Amino acid sequence: MLKLYNRERSGNCYKVRLMLSLLGLEYEKIPVHREGKGRNILPPEFERLSPLRQIPVLVADGKPYWGTIAILVYLARRYGGERWLPHDPEGEATVTQWLSLAQNEIFSGLGRARSMRAGRWHGYGTLEEAHAVAAIALRVLEARLSASDWLALGRPTIADVACYSYTVFAPEGGISLKPYPAVRAWLGRVQGLPNYLATPVYDGAGGPLVE
Amino acid sequence: MLKLYNRERSGNCYKVRLMLSLLGLEYEKIPVHREGKGRNILPPEFERLSPLRQIPVLVADGKPYWGTIAILVYLARRYGGERWLPHDPEGEATVTQWLSLAQNEIFSGLGRARSMRAGRWHGYGTLEEAHAVAAIALRVLEARLSASDWLALGRPTIADVACYSYTVFAPEGGISLKPYPAVRAWLGRVQGLPNYLATPVYDGAGGPLVE
Repeated sequence: MLKLYNRERSGNCYKVRLMLSLLGLEYEKIPVHREGKGRNILPPEFERLSPLRQIPVLVADGKPYWGTIAILVYLARRYGGERWLPHDPEGEATVTQWLSLAQNEIFSGLGRARSMRAGRWHGYGTLEEAHAVAAIALRVLEARLSASDWLALGRPTIADVACYSYTVFAPEGGISLKPYPAVRAWLGRVQGLPNYLATPVYDGAGGPLVE
Repeated sequence: MLKLYNRERSGNCYKVRLMLSLLGLEYEKIPVHREGKGRNILPPEFERLSPLRQIPVLVADGKPYWGTIAILVYLARRYGGERWLPHDPEGEATVTQWLSLAQNEIFSGLGRARSMRAGRWHGYGTLEEAHAVAAIALRVLEARLSASDWLALGRPTIADVACYSYTVFAPEGGISLKPYPAVRAWLGRVQGLPNYLATPVYDGAGGPLVE
């Protein structure tokens, strides 16, 4: 049985829940509540699960995996065959490029802006800086998605799953996707995948749902 | 022929040069000079190579790969067989966990501190914040390397290559590795690998070599 240490509003946990859903996998959710604003979300006794004490953590065959990208790689390799992460060097490297964009510019732009506006950000920087990084990420996504339906290959891969989460949450960080029509069309394609799992998206002031 | 868009003092470019050396591969270096302090290092005409206009970029069989981790994955898969990056889900996910540590806490701690002290940092945060993140990364590395010779598996993998670079540059960021004996022993093991490629490490004030 797969177990996921999960917080519903965490964008990184949502990536894993979305992947589990797309693969049609059953799993047990173990709810985690954030303690304060620090980097370490889990209490110290969880260090055996995640040395950084962060979520998500997936436990599979009794072994814990930490790190969102590592968990997506595990699920794709273990349950997805070639479909979500190819084995050939060119294909895997191309997917990996976009996994890095998700972890770097998308997270530190869109993800950071969202956390800041929710009062949950623990560290450095200003909202303006986060918005500037978000604009870089969205420009790169828009250019790629103007030329291709999916980010890495001619089909959806874990690259799309990894980049989708904080992008769809853009309004919560006070970022409009209006200037990015190709990004919006791609969000719609992800939402049309079989077994897609929706997540609520609020407006930037914690107001009504926009999805 | 492999081509690497390279800057000698870039810690991310050094990861790729080290991997190329460990694999015994010949390649052509194309020197890149930093323009100002911005995120975009390459001039606009390089956008066809890297949408973020960052280095390193590896060109293999005429195709450009951007993103340090993607390049390491490409080289390991294309030239390294199972040795540097296994195909099984558990092994690959375990390697990937440490690739994320390299990109997140090691870079934004040790890498950021190094850039700040060199006057090359483009963005957010203070040296104290960078040092605090570096301490988290080093604590995690020390705990792991107290129990295991190598980060991910019972042998060196691209996880060790990815985490080595900014860790060995710690003194340039004003960070002492004295409190981390297991980390220092591991640096020595990496340095003892066949075809290891050394890099100069200066003290934090741009002074004499410490390696």
